[in-house]
Amino acid sequence: MSKHLTKRADDYSKWYNELVIKADLAENSAVRGCMVIKPYGFAIWEKIQAELDRMFKETGHENAYFPLFVPKSLFEAEEKNAEGFAKECAVVTHYRLQNDPDNEGKLRVDPEAKLEEELVVRPTSEAIIWNTYKGWIESYRDLPLLINQWANVVRWEMRTRLFLRTAEFLWQEGHTAHATKNEAVIEAKQMQEVYAEFAENFMAMPVVKGFKSDSERFAGAEDTYTIEALMQDGKALQAGTSHFLGQNFAKAFDVKFTTKEGKKEHVWATSWGVSTRLIGGLIMTHSDDLGLVLPPKLAPIQVVIVPIYKGDDQLDAISEKMNVFVKELRKKGISVKFDTRDTYRPGAKFAEYELKGVPVRVAIGNRDLENGTLEIARRDTLEKQTVAQDNAVVYIENLLKEIQSNLFKKALEYREEHTTLVNDFKEFKKVIKNKGGFVSAHWDGTEETEDRIKEYTKATIRCIPNNAKEEVGICVLTGKPSSRRVLFAKAY
Amino acid sequence: MSKHLTKRADDYSKWYNELVIKADLAENSAVRGCMVIKPYGFAIWEKIQAELDRMFKETGHENAYFPLFVPKSLFEAEEKNAEGFAKECAVVTHYRLQNDPDNEGKLRVDPEAKLEEELVVRPTSEAIIWNTYKGWIESYRDLPLLINQWANVVRWEMRTRLFLRTAEFLWQEGHTAHATKNEAVIEAKQMQEVYAEFAENFMAMPVVKGFKSDSERFAGAEDTYTIEALMQDGKALQAGTSHFLGQNFAKAFDVKFTTKEGKKEHVWATSWGVSTRLIGGLIMTHSDDLGLVLPPKLAPIQVVIVPIYKGDDQLDAISEKMNVFVKELRKKGISVKFDTRDTYRPGAKFAEYELKGVPVRVAIGNRDLENGTLEIARRDTLEKQTVAQDNAVVYIENLLKEIQSNLFKKALEYREEHTTLVNDFKEFKKVIKNKGGFVSAHWDGTEETEDRIKEYTKATIRCIPNNAKEEVGICVLTGKPSSRRVLFAKAY
Repeated sequence: MSKHLTKRADDYSKWYNELVIKADLAENSAVRGCMVIKPYGFAIWEKIQAELDRMFKETGHENAYFPLFVPKSLFEAEEKNAEGFAKECAVVTHYRLQNDPDNEGKLRVDPEAKLEEELVVRPTSEAIIWNTYKGWIESYRDLPLLINQWANVVRWEMRTRLFLRTAEFLWQEGHTAHATKNEAVIEAKQMQEVYAEFAENFMAMPVVKGFKSDSERFAGAEDTYTIEALMQDGKALQAGTSHFLGQNFAKAFDVKFTTKEGKKEHVWATSWGVSTRLIGGLIMTHSDDLGLVLPPKLAPIQVVIVPIYKGDDQLDAISEKMNVFVKELRKKGISVKFDTRDTYRPGAKFAEYELKGVPVRVAIGNRDLENGTLEIARRDTLEKQTVAQDNAVVYIENLLKEIQSNLFKKALEYREEHTTLVNDFKEFKKVIKNKGGFVSAHWDGTEETEDRIKEYTKATIRCIPNNAKEEVGICVLTGKPSSRRVLFAKAY
Repeated sequence: MSKHLTKRADDYSKWYNELVIKADLAENSAVRGCMVIKPYGFAIWEKIQAELDRMFKETGHENAYFPLFVPKSLFEAEEKNAEGFAKECAVVTHYRLQNDPDNEGKLRVDPEAKLEEELVVRPTSEAIIWNTYKGWIESYRDLPLLINQWANVVRWEMRTRLFLRTAEFLWQEGHTAHATKNEAVIEAKQMQEVYAEFAENFMAMPVVKGFKSDSERFAGAEDTYTIEALMQDGKALQAGTSHFLGQNFAKAFDVKFTTKEGKKEHVWATSWGVSTRLIGGLIMTHSDDLGLVLPPKLAPIQVVIVPIYKGDDQLDAISEKMNVFVKELRKKGISVKFDTRDTYRPGAKFAEYELKGVPVRVAIGNRDLENGTLEIARRDTLEKQTVAQDNAVVYIENLLKEIQSNLFKKALEYREEHTTLVNDFKEFKKVIKNKGGFVSAHWDGTEETEDRIKEYTKATIRCIPNNAKEEVGICVLTGKPSSRRVLFAKAY
């Protein structure tokens, strides 16, 4: 199968699209822009969910569930938010179908079943949630309110790509309410840290933590904190955002609380989310021309065992050994598949698991049985090693850790090599065009300059890094004064 | 709080509605018929999900995700299914809002953004899934296909009640494809068993396993297997269904596979689901006039510890003891809350946890500290016991098991007392009207008789029990011959 995969160097975009399909992660559906997430792809999402959910709960959040639909009058209450999403809303207008009198066996929308008020399919849930919080928050005793929801949302995007940009996607959205501005800012920053920790420790995907410029900010937010990753084609991917919403939603929905001193004040808010887009980032950070490369911590299958045998006797002998081995690995919390299918040859299985990015492949044949050995191959470097069966469990345990950290190291090196300090605009254009990656440059802080740079180069300000140091400089485009560098890149 | 709860005997329906709100499980939202599931209610759903998901995976199923929307042309392909759901479909007709020129600051549906084909918000996913399976199934090697999805669905019900019947609800839907009829029937029955095991072992809710009469069958199914529970008001609740779909969807979507012998045949199908409705069943099976009663296996908090103290010194001394105790309980996998809030008195806390159905309450005061004891109260019987601290972990471990089995026993006794063998229609009417519960009676097998009985009594055939024994009898209404008894009841 893998030989039919387009090479990254030939056409990165085509490589990505093919890989998602060939590795059985997802496919396009009969509904424009909506994807079907296949079991192997969904298993990765389940791993992502489990880890994030644990991290959210450890930081004091609880899960809840709010309606899919937002009545139009609520949707439009926070004007900037409404304006930001109005152009991509799926709208429910009717609640019934009926037999089509002109077309036997077909249905049509029942014109009598028109809703009095249209319902927007949630593109994000601030409006419906803040309308609900109004009933939950009375006094400072009800704060902070720390809630997360796992849900599907719909944004009617015109150009879609599997995982990266789809009309419907799965995500989590945290929505918190606080008594003070300071507490809300701390919460929003905390969740940026949680996302960064998850991206780096589990996805092995290094990220830059920063905040967005005015024009890239979430509609309705005062500040958007972001984590930005760099893909192998030199384009950036916004992997997660956490918003300080100020009192915008509290004011739009009139959510006030009584302070300890008995005063009435508007509540302060945050929201934060990551989505199935992360899977797109995961794929593009590590995978190669042979297929997926998955970090062990998120791989649905961490170890696959392929027996190489002739006849049932040899398979029986191998199975006897391997069944014990499988149990030992599972006892260590390692997920293992022992692939005894007789409908495929070992070579085809090797190619399949390479394509699917299984981190460790164990092969065992008759000679290994005689010698008490196994052949262990790692997916990231494609290196093979013959290992004594007695040491194999410990060897694999260490190897999984080694792969996890090697993937992160490699991705970090790539990003460092592809982050370029630039001081004039000619150089800026050249780097963006030829080398790609992040360009660290001075910017005069105006939206106008941002727009012009985008127009000339397609690069946007990905973020103003949290750790950007104060330095005297001049804007790479206008020459106006600037006090710190920001990160530009072309982006997904 | 609890004193304001309506008594079951006074108004069971009102008691239920109040309890759901007061115990902080869910509330109605701004969207007609849609609920907000609050954190405490959602925590129960998470426990239900975790156990069922484990059981599905142990029986070989994988999770995947299919689109929220079903294009109308796919929706209408399987005619019976389409007809069954057409009257309660939310329909998306437009994909954009725009500023309302007549109404500043307001939005309206953009008339130019009308979809070419309307999209139905899934009321169930057979259509979109079988349209997808068409691309996945080619040969017998691709079968069986054993897939489950956790999702939200929408059915535009006119009369809604929290958890029991809502326009949007959360559920899981399994959709499997098989090479033979027999294999599909076995799968459908297996999932009925999984549901029954879950209901009885985790929810402590006894269920009757049976199959549906023609008129109560799922739209598009050949056979519907059901589990039916009995609520405390004598009404039945359909708690889960598993459908043998025959080749109906395979034919509607032209899904064929090549057999080992090289022939092309239509695939056989099942689907099966349970929903957030289970939470309604859980509430109505066990709870009492003081509030919720939760079986320990699904209780978000299994043990709550309430300190009774005067001043910080006493609280410190109690906390020192209890922090060790909490750790020991958690080591046993028991979820514990140590409630040290100083904004509520112990009495208010007792009432709150009674209302919320926490299975075990531990109280500790100064005298207990001196005596090395704890006061341990169980929610199901309200009994209290003074227990030596040294024995308390083991005592609680056993008590949780005892509560779990006691709840099941109590519910089973109730059901047995409320299952009445009836042989004439006068008696039938009397039992349904006064005593309620299941009525086991002979039925002539016709839809007409079923309809007339429903008209006279509001009772429907809940199921034909799997274990109904063959016996010669006459229909309770018409006197026509019948070979086995079926179960009637009024139902939710």
